[in-house]
Amino acid sequence: MNVVIIGGGAGGLTTASNIRKYDENAEITVITRDKHIAYSPCAIPYVLCGEVNCFDDIIMHQPEDYLERDIKVITRAEVLEVIKNENKIHYRLIDHENEPQREFNYDYLVIATGGAPFIPPVEGSDLEGVFKIRTIEDGIKIKEYAQKSQDAVVIGAGLIGLEIAYGLLNMGLNVTITEMLPQIVPKSLDPDMASIIQEYIEKKGMNVILGNPIEKIIGETHVEGVLFDDKEIKADMVIMATGVRPETKLAEMAGCKLGRWAIRVNEKMQTSVPNIYAVGDCVEVYDAITGHSTQSPLGSTAVRQAKVAAKNIVGIQSKFKPVLNSMVSKVGDLEFGAVGLTSISALQNGIDVISGKSRALTKARYYPGAKRIDVKIICDLKEKIIGCQIIAEERVAERIDTMSLAIAKDITCSELSIMEFSYAPPVSMVIDPIILAAEDACEKLKRLKKIN
Amino acid sequence: MNVVIIGGGAGGLTTASNIRKYDENAEITVITRDKHIAYSPCAIPYVLCGEVNCFDDIIMHQPEDYLERDIKVITRAEVLEVIKNENKIHYRLIDHENEPQREFNYDYLVIATGGAPFIPPVEGSDLEGVFKIRTIEDGIKIKEYAQKSQDAVVIGAGLIGLEIAYGLLNMGLNVTITEMLPQIVPKSLDPDMASIIQEYIEKKGMNVILGNPIEKIIGETHVEGVLFDDKEIKADMVIMATGVRPETKLAEMAGCKLGRWAIRVNEKMQTSVPNIYAVGDCVEVYDAITGHSTQSPLGSTAVRQAKVAAKNIVGIQSKFKPVLNSMVSKVGDLEFGAVGLTSISALQNGIDVISGKSRALTKARYYPGAKRIDVKIICDLKEKIIGCQIIAEERVAERIDTMSLAIAKDITCSELSIMEFSYAPPVSMVIDPIILAAEDACEKLKRLKKIN
Repeated sequence: MNVVIIGGGAGGLTTASNIRKYDENAEITVITRDKHIAYSPCAIPYVLCGEVNCFDDIIMHQPEDYLERDIKVITRAEVLEVIKNENKIHYRLIDHENEPQREFNYDYLVIATGGAPFIPPVEGSDLEGVFKIRTIEDGIKIKEYAQKSQDAVVIGAGLIGLEIAYGLLNMGLNVTITEMLPQIVPKSLDPDMASIIQEYIEKKGMNVILGNPIEKIIGETHVEGVLFDDKEIKADMVIMATGVRPETKLAEMAGCKLGRWAIRVNEKMQTSVPNIYAVGDCVEVYDAITGHSTQSPLGSTAVRQAKVAAKNIVGIQSKFKPVLNSMVSKVGDLEFGAVGLTSISALQNGIDVISGKSRALTKARYYPGAKRIDVKIICDLKEKIIGCQIIAEERVAERIDTMSLAIAKDITCSELSIMEFSYAPPVSMVIDPIILAAEDACEKLKRLKKIN
Repeated sequence: MNVVIIGGGAGGLTTASNIRKYDENAEITVITRDKHIAYSPCAIPYVLCGEVNCFDDIIMHQPEDYLERDIKVITRAEVLEVIKNENKIHYRLIDHENEPQREFNYDYLVIATGGAPFIPPVEGSDLEGVFKIRTIEDGIKIKEYAQKSQDAVVIGAGLIGLEIAYGLLNMGLNVTITEMLPQIVPKSLDPDMASIIQEYIEKKGMNVILGNPIEKIIGETHVEGVLFDDKEIKADMVIMATGVRPETKLAEMAGCKLGRWAIRVNEKMQTSVPNIYAVGDCVEVYDAITGHSTQSPLGSTAVRQAKVAAKNIVGIQSKFKPVLNSMVSKVGDLEFGAVGLTSISALQNGIDVISGKSRALTKARYYPGAKRIDVKIICDLKEKIIGCQIIAEERVAERIDTMSLAIAKDITCSELSIMEFSYAPPVSMVIDPIILAAEDACEKLKRLKKIN
């Protein structure tokens, strides 16, 4: 069996190593445009902010490491064409322009091409000092430029925008983060929870501009400022964190059907072309709650999809389930996470909801170092939990995982309110903040029932 | 409605405040032998080890605080008699010997008498320098005595023994901890996991003696040493952490039936006498996995039971479910927790099991400060998860909660292995250690099926 994988990120490489796990004899080739493979793009902001020492640290493997497991990795190679009927790709080595095109035959092709940053058509977006952020090279360029800059504007206050902005702030720059929508992290958090993070970053000195799309980037040859509806912000550099678009070009060329957002795949991660699979940011998935197609551009999703694809390619049945988009991030000391729908996304999907909230502590009240924790649980009117958002200075990720499991298992807020959580003064409260939020949701639902 | 509650710990006071929450008019009286109420006995070891500043810190409320909510608290009062047919108790004030007995009528009586330390009949156990550990006064005495001592022996390496031993070690004493069974924390952990903690405390300088019951405590008037089968250990003080026995005397006097371990209650926390309820360490519960009666001497259990009792007393239906005994503790930097059955307790209950294990990290591999984490998941041969044990220097408690929910919802290891966990480099690995352990369990089960 001969498998060609396009893309050297989490999706592509996890597919490769999982195929090898089950099949000693498969020929496996990974082709990537990138110079580096097997690095963690999610860690780029943490190199900027100095928590991780250098970019080299976040590169986990070199191509040679894969060769040891008989997986061939070709870097700096661009796939030009997929010839579906011949099960063949054409590619060229980017740094060897004069060499002829090369080709590869495959039994199975895996498309793990990820996404490309979307740069909105704003005047001045081609000036020196405007950066996109996707690859480790982007991170290196941003860091170098930031070292000689004073004022940065980050366009887009999604997760990546926020993390990068905080990284630049920590490097000593004056940072403004801007978002078209009236809140930060709009995809994952409701406004009430987002405002807790906003307050935190503002206290750290970040300037936040909401609900105000940029008009243009000002400058002659390089960035000098950013113009908004009603104000101008001085800037030496601008980071476009305005989202990522799935890279579907090769898939289209191969005749794979697209869905609403990206490459359409079935539960096996198989495209409409039977011997072509696709995983990672370039595919669309289904939302476990609404049932609608959606995107899940998360490293953890790519890895889970890659495992499913690899199993199916070697003939082991495996299915990728609809997603809850369980996520977590850390900005400064503040950790925040979310899973399932926000109240707003629920309403947008026609689901009436109530929310239960708690503000409590991460340890017993008297325990030194106890941190504030905020929990919001979102339930439909049949008590079923469909979303959760948590913010604290510690111990958020695992609580999100608990809630991911709760939502996946269709737990109601009253069921959750009597769950058996562990307790010890140095690590938890005797009644967990999640339980308190669930109780709050139960009481709100009870009052609602009395009214109706 | 007139409610009398015997016991001022987590069970008694939570019952009181929850009754008040639902019923503004109830007369509520709490009677306790203790001088202090509303303190956290679980925190005593953390005062010894210096993490919590002083014993006053762990007292969360004074009787006056309850008076504000119209809950009368009588401290240092001993209930002498429960006259079931007259719905009446007799009590006396401990510090006022000459005063006549007093009495109280009740509509509902709640027994929350907790447990008393069990002191094994060992020669020398009445010497000066031998301590039991249960109340805050015990903690104060131990701390005072430890300040003038050099060598301590803690008998019993359960949770409390271990925590107290570590506290004394941190106070600068030479500490030996001893356990009759061949491992530490035998109720919650399997030997392989317990040995990780043993290695940690030994590295910190604690002396551990296993599988070796004590013969006698040596000394004339005060402790001078402890004699084992084959050796003698020098000691100025001995802590008996040899378990706690439910205090059932008053319940028996009231005609409440006992079960195998303690007071028997139904799902409403009602004893065999309809207007007498019981909560906390003095009652027995059912194990969610085996269905057998068992004990759950945990603050978190007492609180959950108290909420159920309070609701039923005021006429709101509520049921206490069988327990998984979800627990967590922290010894030094090491946090460890468990939920459900250990492999050993499963075998003792006639359940064949396999276990999946992982040793991984609490953050991305390259992230500074990533700590080792060990996870063990126990499954029956139908893949159902019935137990989990986790040890790491951070982020254990919430993972135990995730597993508590997983076990409560009858999740299989293959279901768990594809669950959607959150990921960000500073707070988790892209594949969570729980998922890795679940995958390991799946593979073991698969191999087992091939063999059979």
